[in-house]
Amino acid sequence: MLEIDPNRLRETFESYAEIGATERGGLHRLALSDEDRAARDRLRRDLEALDVAVRVDEIGNVFARRAGTDAEAAPVLVGSHLDSQPFGGRYDGQLGVVCALETLRALEDADLETRRPVELVNWTNEEGVRFEQPMLGSGAFTGVVPVEEALALTDDDGRSVGEELERIGYAGDHPCEAHDVHAHLELHIEQGPRLEEHGTSVGVVEGVFGMNWLRVTIDGEADHAGPTPMHTRTDALAAATEAVGKIGTLPTRLSEDAVTTVGRIDVEPDSINVIPSRATFTADVRSFDDETVERGVEAIRFEVDTACERVGASYDIEDLWHIPHTDFSETVCTTVEAAADEVGASAERIVSGAGHDAKYLNDLAETAMIFVPSADGKTHNEAEFTPWDDVVRGAQVFADATRRLADS
Amino acid sequence: MLEIDPNRLRETFESYAEIGATERGGLHRLALSDEDRAARDRLRRDLEALDVAVRVDEIGNVFARRAGTDAEAAPVLVGSHLDSQPFGGRYDGQLGVVCALETLRALEDADLETRRPVELVNWTNEEGVRFEQPMLGSGAFTGVVPVEEALALTDDDGRSVGEELERIGYAGDHPCEAHDVHAHLELHIEQGPRLEEHGTSVGVVEGVFGMNWLRVTIDGEADHAGPTPMHTRTDALAAATEAVGKIGTLPTRLSEDAVTTVGRIDVEPDSINVIPSRATFTADVRSFDDETVERGVEAIRFEVDTACERVGASYDIEDLWHIPHTDFSETVCTTVEAAADEVGASAERIVSGAGHDAKYLNDLAETAMIFVPSADGKTHNEAEFTPWDDVVRGAQVFADATRRLADS
Repeated sequence: MLEIDPNRLRETFESYAEIGATERGGLHRLALSDEDRAARDRLRRDLEALDVAVRVDEIGNVFARRAGTDAEAAPVLVGSHLDSQPFGGRYDGQLGVVCALETLRALEDADLETRRPVELVNWTNEEGVRFEQPMLGSGAFTGVVPVEEALALTDDDGRSVGEELERIGYAGDHPCEAHDVHAHLELHIEQGPRLEEHGTSVGVVEGVFGMNWLRVTIDGEADHAGPTPMHTRTDALAAATEAVGKIGTLPTRLSEDAVTTVGRIDVEPDSINVIPSRATFTADVRSFDDETVERGVEAIRFEVDTACERVGASYDIEDLWHIPHTDFSETVCTTVEAAADEVGASAERIVSGAGHDAKYLNDLAETAMIFVPSADGKTHNEAEFTPWDDVVRGAQVFADATRRLADS
Repeated sequence: MLEIDPNRLRETFESYAEIGATERGGLHRLALSDEDRAARDRLRRDLEALDVAVRVDEIGNVFARRAGTDAEAAPVLVGSHLDSQPFGGRYDGQLGVVCALETLRALEDADLETRRPVELVNWTNEEGVRFEQPMLGSGAFTGVVPVEEALALTDDDGRSVGEELERIGYAGDHPCEAHDVHAHLELHIEQGPRLEEHGTSVGVVEGVFGMNWLRVTIDGEADHAGPTPMHTRTDALAAATEAVGKIGTLPTRLSEDAVTTVGRIDVEPDSINVIPSRATFTADVRSFDDETVERGVEAIRFEVDTACERVGASYDIEDLWHIPHTDFSETVCTTVEAAADEVGASAERIVSGAGHDAKYLNDLAETAMIFVPSADGKTHNEAEFTPWDDVVRGAQVFADATRRLADS
């Protein structure tokens, strides 16, 4: 078993968590912000101290490869992302990068040579909040998102990914394109309540939900809130709230695992005494079953259509993003289970409701993920928490599974 | 009967409507903007051509008094406002000022001496959009809003009323304080559909609705849209949309005239794949009956409480602004009806759902308003329209009623 150093892991994690720390113990480290730069700089220093070559590609993905004994063998790629949600938690993403770093350090400590290289990665803009395309770095790396398109994405202030990469010094000189990868493993917090509910230490993630994101725009008519009788109004928000309410109840009719979320809503002209002429909201539908997601999208179209018909409003539904479900590699899952067995950590198979960079990597290499429990299943907020013992067990399984994959 | 000149009225109206005209036939002339200055300059030139003394007070209200025969008699004050909503219509406010100007011109044409002075007024920032206090000029004039407070109000760019008055040359040297006013009459578009529906030319406005503005803040818990099962969520927007839906149906249970509007809604953190931790929305409740408004507010509290209880969210309801209903002067209403009778215009009593400067003036002087029809009841948007025949009839009734009041 490749043994990690729990104290070093903790110190490293805590010091990374200070970069962009919020007053309430969370993390606010938006992609390509000054805080993201500081975290990246810290990672680069830590990697250079290990004497592994650091490489930055044109989309800002950071790679660091520790050589193996077989010069021809493709590497095992391990890592996650350092960007966070706005006022998010300190475990999401960052923990996976820090565990990958600890794995490289443990290999050095043990003076262990693996057959395959072990390569750490930090992906750019996984969260897709500041720049509204999640898993941007891994998407560009695997060719799902054209690099030019990724660089041209802008935030709400009109600043592009390309400009911001230049500004923070992470517009790398390596082309962003897939290289040979034998296997990919990412450790992440579960972000749901199941492992905690079951009292399991490690989730062996065998797949990821299919997802669909929609943007609904409803057009009514602006009118004065006073003299306009209720029956002559075409209130865009009235249609929107009715549809949003229905969307929240859809999962009960779709499947046991389906979830729907409306995370954004806005109105125009956004004035207390003016009936909204336009309401815009997003919808997010997920299930492990692609057909269920499709039925969810159909049901949303129906509910929007019905609500708009009732109010007399018109609408447009834009398909922002969709992605089928993922089946991860059985080989990697079995390897993780063997490592968990050796470490003595309880493990169970689990499916991820959240998208992860590993999802894209799955098309390129044998891929799976390791989940550690999330207290109360809370995530994407400052209360995000994983008990330290669970982190250590997860990191230990991760390190040993990485070693196993690197020797396979 | 004091006869107006319909052609001159139309030419004047059209030329004023060019100042800040939008491509789609509306008006974009925010308070104290360059366009507002140009409209004010035009008014000042037109008044000076009539040889009446123009006076500007420190809040930018413009007064022009045509003397009467009785040096001791308090004037009849007539007018409205020249500022508009953002991309609003060309009738709201402006029409009342132009009709007051036509009345002064008609008095000159007829070489008519009235006992009381007739005084034209253009109030500053009636719309309360650029500077978020509606009826600002009349509020300061009547002492409802302290002048210092009014001058210190800022727009979204941090520019104050005082600075902008200086910039456009309308920081007048007269103190902003109430002077003796015998009666006040304001002509305005209805901004609702009733006159058109009833085929009536002139609305004799006998009062203004009571109003209450609330801000509702609902707190739930942010969570990831994927791995968080529906049953463990505390979705602030789910509670908000349920409450907003209920608020939209309240008027059916309150009274025939009650209206409720939700004009603003926002969520935090406002991310596609994060369950909203906070939802904020406003509610506007109106009725001519103050008790109905009160019952409306109680019903909103009940609906918010019920929705939050169901979702498990907490909430806060802030009372932003409220104002009781207004009864206008029976004397002035009767005078307007007598004028309508002489002009041969059909008239009906009506109540205003919208606030107007006349509401504040009612505390100071015998006050009422004249409404002319709004096509489809549309207002606060570029499609605002009043057929020209209705404008002429309204202006004619307004001029004659003003003469009658000035001789009373």
